[in-house]
Amino acid sequence: MMIPGIMQAAVLVGPSRLEVKEVAIPEPGPMEVLLKVESCACCSTDVALMEKPFAGQPPFGSFIPGHEYAGTVAALGDTVDEFEIGDRVAVEAHLGCLRCKNCRIGNYTACLNYGSQKHRANGMTANGGFAQYVVNNVNTLHRLPASIDFNEAALITNLGCVLYGFQTLGGYVAGDHVAVIGPGPLGLISVQVAKTLGAERVYLIGTRESRLNVGAATGADRIINVHNEDPLDVVFKETHGVGADFVIECSGGQDAPMMAIRIAKPMGKILLLGIPYTPVSVDFAELIQKNKSIHTARGEGWSNVARAVSMVGSGRITLKPYVTHAFPLEKISTAFKTFSERIGGAVKVIVKPNVKDLGPSGSLF
Amino acid sequence: MMIPGIMQAAVLVGPSRLEVKEVAIPEPGPMEVLLKVESCACCSTDVALMEKPFAGQPPFGSFIPGHEYAGTVAALGDTVDEFEIGDRVAVEAHLGCLRCKNCRIGNYTACLNYGSQKHRANGMTANGGFAQYVVNNVNTLHRLPASIDFNEAALITNLGCVLYGFQTLGGYVAGDHVAVIGPGPLGLISVQVAKTLGAERVYLIGTRESRLNVGAATGADRIINVHNEDPLDVVFKETHGVGADFVIECSGGQDAPMMAIRIAKPMGKILLLGIPYTPVSVDFAELIQKNKSIHTARGEGWSNVARAVSMVGSGRITLKPYVTHAFPLEKISTAFKTFSERIGGAVKVIVKPNVKDLGPSGSLF
Amino acid sequence: MMIPGIMQAAVLVGPSRLEVKEVAIPEPGPMEVLLKVESCACCSTDVALMEKPFAGQPPFGSFIPGHEYAGTVAALGDTVDEFEIGDRVAVEAHLGCLRCKNCRIGNYTACLNYGSQKHRANGMTANGGFAQYVVNNVNTLHRLPASIDFNEAALITNLGCVLYGFQTLGGYVAGDHVAVIGPGPLGLISVQVAKTLGAERVYLIGTRESRLNVGAATGADRIINVHNEDPLDVVFKETHGVGADFVIECSGGQDAPMMAIRIAKPMGKILLLGIPYTPVSVDFAELIQKNKSIHTARGEGWSNVARAVSMVGSGRITLKPYVTHAFPLEKISTAFKTFSERIGGAVKVIVKPNVKDLGPSGSLF
Amino acid sequence: MMIPGIMQAAVLVGPSRLEVKEVAIPEPGPMEVLLKVESCACCSTDVALMEKPFAGQPPFGSFIPGHEYAGTVAALGDTVDEFEIGDRVAVEAHLGCLRCKNCRIGNYTACLNYGSQKHRANGMTANGGFAQYVVNNVNTLHRLPASIDFNEAALITNLGCVLYGFQTLGGYVAGDHVAVIGPGPLGLISVQVAKTLGAERVYLIGTRESRLNVGAATGADRIINVHNEDPLDVVFKETHGVGADFVIECSGGQDAPMMAIRIAKPMGKILLLGIPYTPVSVDFAELIQKNKSIHTARGEGWSNVARAVSMVGSGRITLKPYVTHAFPLEKISTAFKTFSERIGGAVKVIVKPNVKDLGPSGSLF
Repeated sequence: MMIPGIMQAAVLVGPSRLEVKEVAIPEPGPMEVLLKVESCACCSTDVALMEKPFAGQPPFGSFIPGHEYAGTVAALGDTVDEFEIGDRVAVEAHLGCLRCKNCRIGNYTACLNYGSQKHRANGMTANGGFAQYVVNNVNTLHRLPASIDFNEAALITNLGCVLYGFQTLGGYVAGDHVAVIGPGPLGLISVQVAKTLGAERVYLIGTRESRLNVGAATGADRIINVHNEDPLDVVFKETHGVGADFVIECSGGQDAPMMAIRIAKPMGKILLLGIPYTPVSVDFAELIQKNKSIHTARGEGWSNVARAVSMVGSGRITLKPYVTHAFPLEKISTAFKTFSERIGGAVKVIVKPNVKDLGPSGSLF
Repeated sequence: MMIPGIMQAAVLVGPSRLEVKEVAIPEPGPMEVLLKVESCACCSTDVALMEKPFAGQPPFGSFIPGHEYAGTVAALGDTVDEFEIGDRVAVEAHLGCLRCKNCRIGNYTACLNYGSQKHRANGMTANGGFAQYVVNNVNTLHRLPASIDFNEAALITNLGCVLYGFQTLGGYVAGDHVAVIGPGPLGLISVQVAKTLGAERVYLIGTRESRLNVGAATGADRIINVHNEDPLDVVFKETHGVGADFVIECSGGQDAPMMAIRIAKPMGKILLLGIPYTPVSVDFAELIQKNKSIHTARGEGWSNVARAVSMVGSGRITLKPYVTHAFPLEKISTAFKTFSERIGGAVKVIVKPNVKDLGPSGSLF
Repeated sequence: MMIPGIMQAAVLVGPSRLEVKEVAIPEPGPMEVLLKVESCACCSTDVALMEKPFAGQPPFGSFIPGHEYAGTVAALGDTVDEFEIGDRVAVEAHLGCLRCKNCRIGNYTACLNYGSQKHRANGMTANGGFAQYVVNNVNTLHRLPASIDFNEAALITNLGCVLYGFQTLGGYVAGDHVAVIGPGPLGLISVQVAKTLGAERVYLIGTRESRLNVGAATGADRIINVHNEDPLDVVFKETHGVGADFVIECSGGQDAPMMAIRIAKPMGKILLLGIPYTPVSVDFAELIQKNKSIHTARGEGWSNVARAVSMVGSGRITLKPYVTHAFPLEKISTAFKTFSERIGGAVKVIVKPNVKDLGPSGSLF
Repeated sequence: MMIPGIMQAAVLVGPSRLEVKEVAIPEPGPMEVLLKVESCACCSTDVALMEKPFAGQPPFGSFIPGHEYAGTVAALGDTVDEFEIGDRVAVEAHLGCLRCKNCRIGNYTACLNYGSQKHRANGMTANGGFAQYVVNNVNTLHRLPASIDFNEAALITNLGCVLYGFQTLGGYVAGDHVAVIGPGPLGLISVQVAKTLGAERVYLIGTRESRLNVGAATGADRIINVHNEDPLDVVFKETHGVGADFVIECSGGQDAPMMAIRIAKPMGKILLLGIPYTPVSVDFAELIQKNKSIHTARGEGWSNVARAVSMVGSGRITLKPYVTHAFPLEKISTAFKTFSERIGGAVKVIVKPNVKDLGPSGSLF
């Protein structure tokens, strides 16, 4: 594969300000691979870190964001024999540091060196995928079967995150009742994961009818629009007073953690994937007296991206319904606007750094 | 053993109003045992449920509270061959219902029939130990070695609860850093459990110097009086910036859950044993972005009272320092006042239903 | 429902000798239910315990075997409100004793009182389902959705056993490689469970082409007939030298445990469901030096029959292909002969105690 | 610290043939540290791999064995700030490859690249500690408190291995019954670990009275010499017919795995640490019908060497009783002979590469 010396990349030049510039193509180290980026998705974490930099984020003027991407292997580091040039791959963002106590025992998304020089998470503490090329450690790459296209592949890290969440809960759902709060990308994927792992019944709770309809079409057994029904009433009635075995909170809303706690049955488990960025009020007596527990999933840990590739590759889970828009790199600001303001019913919006023109609408679709 | 037909018992006759009365001695069913109560401890749960009845609690005028007790086997149900008359035993409060899905798989303290006719928790949904006699299911009894006296034995359910909490956390502490918030009975016991299971270092956080001193004398490596020091500063400095592997919250204070969350390391686990009875403010971003989790322990589950008897019997853990006062049954109101107001440095206060007179001070000590 | 006083039942009158006799219909105790048996399947455990009685089995002349059955609720014990007369139900065989330490913490299939008066496992230590009526504890019943017929329902305990096995392994299979040895009923069901929980690839290993074909039709990705191929070569080649994440041994063959151990990857887990009734030779160095582990599943523990009902009810798993024959009660000896000798390609053979005549062939099919 | 260019090292020049030679001192890479070796213990794994090389072992003439050692930091790789020159450290042998799926999720002792160029385990697939200097990755080093001397520190990897084994079992022993088979180094350490984690009672089973006496002196509650008593009789009698919760097999004997399986209670867990190098006969019906499981521990995984340093540093566990002999490097053959033939009651034998003369007996003791 011919690799030029210079590439186009979206550089964060100031708070929430991206500029497409020419920068040098990075070179892979001994355990690294150079990827040609085919598709990179916009994520709400990008929005947050572009507005207010995260710990360890490279400074304005040098940082290229983007952590949900897929691409083609373009060059190999000296020791790499796990991949070949031309391989199509999905990524996980978090490498970790390979040397702290958390990384040593496999908890690399909770690296104790997060934000230091030793740590690496592409698109967060190292350059990411809103560029024509990006460098990844071999640990963070997973070969794609032909049945997965690059746009869908860019979302696989989302599925990896949800699967990791289910694994932190204990990971066995056959016959259980699962409630999902928030029909955003992670919530919609959670619905599919719960059904795929054998949930008896999945309740999807939200406010936007259009998104709830996407959930109904991709596996939710019971849609609860909180404008019309009380989720507690519905779940308790339909579980004969028991409550849900698992509640997956994906909205980040102020009232959502407490709703999640109440909906869970005694000994039930709550998974928080949505992040409420301001403090919320919690009645812990409900949690403690009914022996419930609260779990979290930072990133796509425990190699769940490998599981995600398998689930999508075999057709058990599809991420295609969530890919609603795509733009070339020069329209990245339009892409983020489309994503953030859900223009045209946007769920996930893709940037294609190596495609010049996607037509007059600026979109593949 | 000669059993009279009538016994003395402390009956809850109205909100926070106990009256010592003569009532009929209950008869054990086929799987039950009649116990002569030797010691029954006052617990803050008693205070709460006497003030405002819990779900499934028998009505005023008929309910005998008390769930932390020890005694002697006085009579056996038809099918009981696990015990002999005269056996000295500790108890666990929760029988459960023996038939809901939670009980079926061993989670009997989170019984789905809690509060219904089918469920039984002595001193909560059935009569308890502030009486000369009480009936227990064989499942809730554990034979005592001679090395444990009845006053210490009455506190064993507390230790069972703490051990259950550690087991819900994963139960392996060798070399880990543990922070305990709140030097009440459960907090002080948590300090001992953490050290006994091999904690590298136990931090005890509180406000009352006298109680902190008890903790220092029973194993805490580092006392943090929040009036003098910032617990976060101390723990992070002394763990080289990492944080505690486990945080055990036993204070029930408003600020405590958030302190617990902050003190835990990335991937760290928080155990909530203290119940804040009003809502508290929580910054879940700290929990989620560092992949921490919150666990609870309702009662003394998973047969941890058996483990507790072993730990006390072998001398690894001592509950004696927490038994500070004892009263005869007729002075039960004084007992609760002494306990609630911590008169004379009271930690745990015992009622002795089968002892007539404990001397002019009304106390054994 | 009208219940007569007398019923027809297959009584074990001597080693491997069943006789259909009139016996009194049992009455349900307070926590029990009387079932009208609609379908009861022949199992190889029946064959074994009829030949040589198990510990705690009632004596010849009084014992009615049969532990895989389904039926209709005919009468309720005094305290039972979980079911109504006429409810269609599946069963689990093991009640346990409700009072030993294993039962207390939910491990009721490994009851410490197994074989004593206190213990109960229908069709093993208490009367079972080769009769018109049988008594079950409420704990051992699960309501059936209309989508499951009684013949399929009789096999649900098999699925409960396999699911319990997967749960003992950790219970999260998404994307993993699973090898199944032995295409008998449990092996064929294991193939379906592995696929349903998301296995990337399921290898089915055996010798009988007809049974392997059943496996291929119900989900196995790769059939390995050991007469034609070496299973180790195949699995290692197709997993790029890694080995299988999980190996489920269902054949009970002499060489099977060692084959299972070799096929598992480093850190892989082996589940033994098939019982080799004579000692086998094991090279433990292979197990230990690659940090593999061996798990077992006695019966259908941890309430997995509830999960099984859900999986069959929702159509994720079908047990219908394994129901190949059915006979009325008076032909029970023919039923067992058909089952044991696999006459007419028999997989599972059903006895219908409340059906008089199944036609000239003695079979529904 | 002054580092010469050349060091003394014991090089494996042929099967079971060590020769002390001058070789170049290795240089640490970016994530590595050069250690001055103070004490390196002889292990039966050394004996095995010197006789018949393991997969991935460097060839005769270039390989320096030794994986149980402790030393002083002598030089730092470019990126190392976790340690300072002069730090006293213990080691773990297994680095793993930092890039296979097992290493990625923390199972580095079961590295899928074991034996390849990518993999590293000091003293197995890379040079080890029978030399004046050795290079270690930062991941494999743990700082020693002043309370631990180098000879005891050389044995810490053994304790790490036993602790890892207990963690694979679930890691919570409070109040449980533990049987240990084989009073060799790992067995004796297992006795201490079981007691330290709170075992109600530890049974030590063996044949050599002198070694059993060491066990009795370091915590075993009940010594069973199989020449005098039947271990099954003893354990079942003293557990009231239940059996042991955990059985730790450390002898590697032919009959030991089956003894371990029989001694375990229903649902009990067996840990195999001793490796029987020839096939053994196993009655799996006993394992399966009582729902027992078999676990293994390859090396000192999941960072348990960190836990081990804590346990020894705090005095909970002492390894000093097992350090019975020490020799200078030039007497390494005498050291191994003393170890293998248990001359003078040898348990563990230390080699001191940087000490010239240990007196006329060739031993520190």
